[in-house]
Amino acid sequence: MNEDQKYLYFLTGNFNKFNEVLEIFNKSKLTQYYLLTPSRTEPIEIQANSVREVAEFKINSVLDQMNDSFFVEDAGFFVDEPLYGFPGVYSSYVLTVLGNEGILKLVEGEGETKAHFESVIALYFKPTDEIKIFEGKVEGTLAKKLRGDKGFGFDPIFIPNELPDKTFSEISAEEKNKISHRGQAFSKLIDFLKENI
Amino acid sequence: MNEDQKYLYFLTGNFNKFNEVLEIFNKSKLTQYYLLTPSRTEPIEIQANSVREVAEFKINSVLDQMNDSFFVEDAGFFVDEPLYGFPGVYSSYVLTVLGNEGILKLVEGEGETKAHFESVIALYFKPTDEIKIFEGKVEGTLAKKLRGDKGFGFDPIFIPNELPDKTFSEISAEEKNKISHRGQAFSKLIDFLKENI
Repeated sequence: MNEDQKYLYFLTGNFNKFNEVLEIFNKSKLTQYYLLTPSRTEPIEIQANSVREVAEFKINSVLDQMNDSFFVEDAGFFVDEPLYGFPGVYSSYVLTVLGNEGILKLVEGEGETKAHFESVIALYFKPTDEIKIFEGKVEGTLAKKLRGDKGFGFDPIFIPNELPDKTFSEISAEEKNKISHRGQAFSKLIDFLKENI
Repeated sequence: MNEDQKYLYFLTGNFNKFNEVLEIFNKSKLTQYYLLTPSRTEPIEIQANSVREVAEFKINSVLDQMNDSFFVEDAGFFVDEPLYGFPGVYSSYVLTVLGNEGILKLVEGEGETKAHFESVIALYFKPTDEIKIFEGKVEGTLAKKLRGDKGFGFDPIFIPNELPDKTFSEISAEEKNKISHRGQAFSKLIDFLKENI
């Protein structure tokens, strides 16, 4: 760590997510100013109707425990048709208990599918003592079966509209970050941090 | 309200639940001491691993807003086999988006089922300024299709082991309260209140 670098904490217990974000971060010029650091400080995760509400509650729940800039990132996978947005804000739990197989079973024989991923970053920015929100979204459809071995979570069954032949698990991390919900949200975060060096 | 009666607030937005509890309450002798009253004070609902954690967090989240004894009740429906406990603490959300049909679709062709309901009441008891927890649980299996028109929630697909021919929706409220998770938890709450008049 050089003397110009400041800590930037990412509160997450998900190493796949941390690595994906690190990949994005390391490609930006921010590494000379910030040292991206995982933190296990545990924010409160509420049951809410939107990813944004979950992220906003989280960041506020740990404000008094943090002395540097930090952020949380919440994501959700929404099967808009035919599952009315399920699993949405409960994606992580549903992935654990039902898996991608469970989602495919629920949509079986139901016709056309529509799905999207959302990512919301809530940043506490120490220099100005404010909370900023950055969002990203990617739309697509569901594959008929799991395809590919890259990525994590619901990536093996999600086909983004931008690349209609591939699931998120069939493309490289770099390709995924260019179009993904998380890639978009982090590109906004990075722009903000660059403008406020 | 007579002069001996005290308010006892039930924090819930679910009228089916309130009516079920009122039915239990009115059968007890407590009505001369307490006036069961619905309250729309909104506690914070977290994402947690157990119904008990959700209920305990809820009651603590509104302690400073309440001036009388009050309680919350949280319930969960767990399909232990073959769904690893899904939907559990997310029962209410899953009921809305997937319904009983979604649960039946997920277990289709998977063989034997095991399921249970859990209920946790967290009571703030004003006279002694303490929080008490009361729990109830009922075990059973899943019906092959929705049966009956009574009750609410996952009742149409749940067959309690005590009455192996009927779903919770095929029996009266009175019969259900005798064996149900909520009936058990409330009977413990009522015993506590009677002992502490």
